[in-house]
Amino acid sequence: MASEGFSPQEIEALCQTPSPNTKDFMFQQTMYRIKDPRKSLPFYTGVLGMTLLKQLHFPEMKFSLFFMGYENPNEIPKDEKERSQWAMSRKATLELTYNWGTENDNTVYHNGNSDPRGFGHIGILVPDVDEACERFEQQGVKFVKRPQDGKMKGLAFIQDPDGYWIEIFTNKVVS
Amino acid sequence: MASEGFSPQEIEALCQTPSPNTKDFMFQQTMYRIKDPRKSLPFYTGVLGMTLLKQLHFPEMKFSLFFMGYENPNEIPKDEKERSQWAMSRKATLELTYNWGTENDNTVYHNGNSDPRGFGHIGILVPDVDEACERFEQQGVKFVKRPQDGKMKGLAFIQDPDGYWIEIFTNKVVS
Repeated sequence: MASEGFSPQEIEALCQTPSPNTKDFMFQQTMYRIKDPRKSLPFYTGVLGMTLLKQLHFPEMKFSLFFMGYENPNEIPKDEKERSQWAMSRKATLELTYNWGTENDNTVYHNGNSDPRGFGHIGILVPDVDEACERFEQQGVKFVKRPQDGKMKGLAFIQDPDGYWIEIFTNKVVS
Repeated sequence: MASEGFSPQEIEALCQTPSPNTKDFMFQQTMYRIKDPRKSLPFYTGVLGMTLLKQLHFPEMKFSLFFMGYENPNEIPKDEKERSQWAMSRKATLELTYNWGTENDNTVYHNGNSDPRGFGHIGILVPDVDEACERFEQQGVKFVKRPQDGKMKGLAFIQDPDGYWIEIFTNKVVS
């Protein structure tokens, strides 16, 4: 059943004032699963320019976690315990979960943009969308939407090695 | 087919040094779809303590976007165009996509943690997991895992109104 959505006033009225109990909460991580670190790690570092903040391995449960983010590599603590605490307190990290063996089997992860839908994308703010996309083209990155395609000019969607969507945009476009 | 995963050295070797071209890139947003703003907005503000940074409505395509994040409400620019640019340049925002009418139909979004898997969760760093979870209990929040459950003590997973998983943790636990 179609609806006319909600008015800006209705939306504002649905929002509550944050409790003082939540004042030190931080949106720290977004997690999704990857099939093959040999593809994903070069992509997130070499293409998107993130740094591996911390890796964690859980042999008993046969999985590994890779925390990625835009941080200065020189700030990574040498001590591994300190490094964990540091990585887990950086804002806006991407947590890649790798279940051992998926690189060799028929695992295909679902990007959320076909049925059943849910998750949509992560988004990277860049200084210049066209420049960033030219570089991605040269690197052989897959595009869902190039900046000049579709109704929403000036922003792009690329795909990571598992097919997850990554929006590439600047904050100068949306009005 | 099982594998033994990759060694820390192999993982490090897969990571490339970020190009200077990506030095101003920012992980700005994580997007997923919500069925009903009347449930999601009170949850993300009243329970998790986020603020509505910006709302955008697209009547022609019948959807709305709500950018949520941990920012000081007093810093929100009054001018709506400035507010857009400001919101789209805050680090670590959650972009909730609402397709008009889903609150009235049988839409159920997929949280990525059952087949077909992919996206896993977002994670909120909190000063004290037990305190945060007691408050969530009082607010009637659904738990996937309480801090004392399972192997990984001291961290919890709650669910938003659509069933998306939200990890609640501190950076003092993981070693």
